[in-house]
Amino acid sequence: MMKKSIFLAVVFIILVSITSYAQQDLWGGSKNVSPELKDDNTVIFRLLAPNAQEVKITGNWMPAAVAMTKGEKGIWSYTTGVLPSDLYSYAFIVDGMKCSDPGNVYLIRDVATVTNVFIVGGGIGDLFKVNKVAHGTVTRRWYDSPSNKMSRRITIYTPPGYETSKQKYPVLYLLHGMGGDEEAWIALGRTSQILDNLIAQGKAKPMIVAMCNGNVIQEAAPGESSLGFYTPTFQLPNTMDGKMEETFPDVIKFIESNYRVVTEKSGRAIAGLSMGGYHSLHISRYYPNTFDYIGLFSAAIKPDNKVTSKVYKDIDGTLNTQMKNGYKLYWIGIGKSDFLYKDVTEYRAKLDKMGMKYTYRESEGGHTWTNWRVYLSEFAPLLFK
Amino acid sequence: MMKKSIFLAVVFIILVSITSYAQQDLWGGSKNVSPELKDDNTVIFRLLAPNAQEVKITGNWMPAAVAMTKGEKGIWSYTTGVLPSDLYSYAFIVDGMKCSDPGNVYLIRDVATVTNVFIVGGGIGDLFKVNKVAHGTVTRRWYDSPSNKMSRRITIYTPPGYETSKQKYPVLYLLHGMGGDEEAWIALGRTSQILDNLIAQGKAKPMIVAMCNGNVIQEAAPGESSLGFYTPTFQLPNTMDGKMEETFPDVIKFIESNYRVVTEKSGRAIAGLSMGGYHSLHISRYYPNTFDYIGLFSAAIKPDNKVTSKVYKDIDGTLNTQMKNGYKLYWIGIGKSDFLYKDVTEYRAKLDKMGMKYTYRESEGGHTWTNWRVYLSEFAPLLFK
Repeated sequence: MMKKSIFLAVVFIILVSITSYAQQDLWGGSKNVSPELKDDNTVIFRLLAPNAQEVKITGNWMPAAVAMTKGEKGIWSYTTGVLPSDLYSYAFIVDGMKCSDPGNVYLIRDVATVTNVFIVGGGIGDLFKVNKVAHGTVTRRWYDSPSNKMSRRITIYTPPGYETSKQKYPVLYLLHGMGGDEEAWIALGRTSQILDNLIAQGKAKPMIVAMCNGNVIQEAAPGESSLGFYTPTFQLPNTMDGKMEETFPDVIKFIESNYRVVTEKSGRAIAGLSMGGYHSLHISRYYPNTFDYIGLFSAAIKPDNKVTSKVYKDIDGTLNTQMKNGYKLYWIGIGKSDFLYKDVTEYRAKLDKMGMKYTYRESEGGHTWTNWRVYLSEFAPLLFK
Repeated sequence: MMKKSIFLAVVFIILVSITSYAQQDLWGGSKNVSPELKDDNTVIFRLLAPNAQEVKITGNWMPAAVAMTKGEKGIWSYTTGVLPSDLYSYAFIVDGMKCSDPGNVYLIRDVATVTNVFIVGGGIGDLFKVNKVAHGTVTRRWYDSPSNKMSRRITIYTPPGYETSKQKYPVLYLLHGMGGDEEAWIALGRTSQILDNLIAQGKAKPMIVAMCNGNVIQEAAPGESSLGFYTPTFQLPNTMDGKMEETFPDVIKFIESNYRVVTEKSGRAIAGLSMGGYHSLHISRYYPNTFDYIGLFSAAIKPDNKVTSKVYKDIDGTLNTQMKNGYKLYWIGIGKSDFLYKDVTEYRAKLDKMGMKYTYRESEGGHTWTNWRVYLSEFAPLLFK
C-alpha cells in the first residue's frame, strides 16, 4: 500500500517546503482544528496569534464580537454555547483587524466580503449539507439577452435524473438581492443542497432552478466577466428601474428553448429575496399570466418615485389582472425585525383589500441569508403539486 | 434614474449597519484598494492594521516575504517591481500571523490553504482572464463509477456552441495532482478561461475538457461530499496504487455515453500534472490504443516499490505496445528546478532508448501552477489537429 510509502512522504515534504519561491509561506496553513464542532452542538474556534494583544470573534449568531482567550503556545480560543442547527458565518478580529480563520478553507463571498462558514447539523442545517443522496447538476452557462444587447451568465440547477429521463420539468426562477449575482443563491443560498435534500426526501418535486443575474448592466458576477477582478459593490445602476422586469422574457425563452421543461404557467415559479422579491412581484404582475407560483422573500415592494418605466405605470391594474388570471401560490415571507417589514405589511393590506390571496410566513430575525435559506426550504415543497 | 435615489441609499445604509446581529462586523470590508494594478505592471498592496508591529507580504513572485511600510492612518503598503504578465498569489503576514487581503475577494483554495490572487495582463496572463469572447459552459455533475462502487463528482467544460451544434467534439481528460480534486484545474488551472481564449483566437480546436477526481477514495472535492466541511489533506490513500488507472474506463464511458463526442482514439487526449501526469502516463499505456494525445506536466513517473497492482506489472511492454499502436503526440513538460526533474530525465532516456517519440518542453521554475497553466496553454493548441 502507498499510505506510508517513502515516495509519497518525500513528495509531500519537498512540495510543501522547497517548491520554488514562497510556496512554503503560502501553503503553511493552520495546524489548529478550527472550527471544531462538538457533539453537543457547541463549537470551538482556535487561532494561532502569539503576538496579538487582543483577539475577538464575530459571528452571525452573536449580537456583537466577543473576546477570545489566549492559551498555551499563543493559541487563542473561544467556545460557543449550544448552537441551533444552521449554517453560520464568522470572522476573527485580531488587534482590530478582521481576518478569516486560517484553519477553515470554507468561505463564501457576500458582496465585497468573504467570510468563513460552518454548518451545525441535527436540524435545518442538515438541508444545507451535502448528504448521501442523488445529486443534481449545477451548470454555469452564457445565454443571449437581445433585450439587454448582451451575452449573460446564468447558473442552472437540474435535478437528479434530468439528463437520463424523458420527462419535462417545471422551473423555479430564483432571483438574488442587491449586491448579489448569479452565484448568490448557489453559494450563500445552498440551493443545490436544499433541492437535492428536499427531492430525496420526497418533499419537493424534481425541478430546474434558474438563477440569473438580476443586475441588467452586468454580464456576470464579479470576477466572471471581462471587467476582471474588481471590488464588488452593493449598489449598481439600473437594478430597480424596470429593465430587469422588461427583459426577463429573454431568460424564460433561453430556458424553455434549451431545457426539457414544462412551457406553461403551471410549470413556472418565480421567487427572490429583497430586490429579487421586488423583481418577482413586478415581473409576475407585468406578465400576469405567466407564473402559477410566486415567492417574495423579504421583498422590497415599491419602486422609487423617480423611476419612469412603463413597467410600474399600472401596478394595481396588473395585480388585479394577475389575480383574475389565477395562480396557485403567492407566498410572502418576512422577518419581524426586517427593515422592509412595514412595506411588506402595507403591501399585504393592499392585497387584502383587493381580495388577492397569499400565504404569509412571518419569521424571527431580519434581512439575512439565515432567513432566505429557510424560506427557500419552505417554499420549494409547495411548488408544482 | 435610480442611481442616487433616496430609497437605495436607505436600503444600503440600513442593510450594512443595522441588519440583525453582527452583520456590520461581517460586512465591514476593507476600504483600501488592494491590490492596485498600475499601468506599468507594478502592483500596490495596502492593509489597514493600525495596531500591528510588523506586516510582511509573501507572494509567489518573490523568494521570501518582504516588509510592508506603515503609512498614514495605520495603512501598511508595498509596491512590487514590474511584474511579468501572469496570475499571482499572495498573503499578508501580520505580527507573524498569515492572513488574506480584506480588500481582495478573489481567492483560490490549494489543498488546505486559501490564497488571494490577481492577474497582470499584457501577456500570458491575458489567457487566464475572462475576455469578451464566446464562453463555454462549466458543469459540475455526478456520474456512476461502478468499478469504485461510488457516485462521483466531475467538472466538465463544453466549448462555446456545444449545446446548439450537431458536431461531435473531441475530449481532453485533464487530471489534477496530489491534494487536488475535480475543482483544481477549473479553479487554480483557469481551464475554462484558457480554453475560451485559445478557441476564440483560433489556436485550439473546440473540445470538451473532462476534469475528474483522481483520488479514487473520494466521491468529491472537500466540502462537496457527505464528509462535510473537513480540513483537506495533501496525502490520501489509494492515489497511486493502480486503482485510478484501472477504474478510468468508467469516466470515459460516462463522457462518451452522455456527451456528443468523438468515440475514437483520434478524439481522445489525456494529460495531467504531477500525480495526474503519472496517471496519464500509466492509463495511456495500460489502455494502449485509447489516446492519440498524451500530456505529462511535471509528472511523477515510477510507482512505489510496494505497489502490487497489475497495472504496473509490465510497464515497458505496455509502453512498447502503445508505441507500436501509434499516437499523434506524447508531450512532456517539466521545470528545471522541479524535484521530479531527475525522474523525468530518466524516463526520457528510457523512451529514447525504446525509440518512442515525444515532444519535450523544459521551462524555468519548478512544481507550480504557474508552470501548469503555461503547459495547458501550450498543449491544448496541439490537440485534435
